[in-house]
Amino acid sequence: MYIILVYDIGEKRVSKMLRLCRKYLNWIQNSVFEGEITEVKLKELKIAANKIMKAEEDSLIIFRSREEKWLKKEIIGIEKNEIDNFL
Amino acid sequence: MYIILVYDIGEKRVSKMLRLCRKYLNWIQNSVFEGEITEVKLKELKIAANKIMKAEEDSLIIFRSREEKWLKKEIIGIEKNEIDNFL
Repeated sequence: MYIILVYDIGEKRVSKMLRLCRKYLNWIQNSVFEGEITEVKLKELKIAANKIMKAEEDSLIIFRSREEKWLKKEIIGIEKNEIDNFL
Repeated sequence: MYIILVYDIGEKRVSKMLRLCRKYLNWIQNSVFEGEITEVKLKELKIAANKIMKAEEDSLIIFRSREEKWLKKEIIGIEKNEIDNFL
């Protein structure tokens, strides 16, 4: 399964969430991640994310596609994850 | 065609970009939009976005799926766009 994950989360919790998501997915922009993931790993990720998040303030959206090829990605401007690799 | 659009853009240009994207898509979180769009309208949106963006600083990612049903969306935490509708 291929997913896109985006979060909107309080500043105090951002770095924890970033670290968590990087363990499972590829960071592509700001608070956006993508990658192949199994059902089991996604469950793990969601449980861990729930522990970090404040349910009444934070938001996490997951888009699932059965296969990556069903999603075509286009990047306009700079590729932030390439910059990130240099840091 | 169904798209997910995410941007990471300099603060000075954010409000312009937000206004532009809202004209074509549904705002779902922070800098994330989704919706059905035609090829022609997407081209229009990209041309307008390019005028707002600084190519060396800003980034815009578009994920396209031929049909919405191929993407399953799950929201954890709050639905920011519902809050937005009340504002």
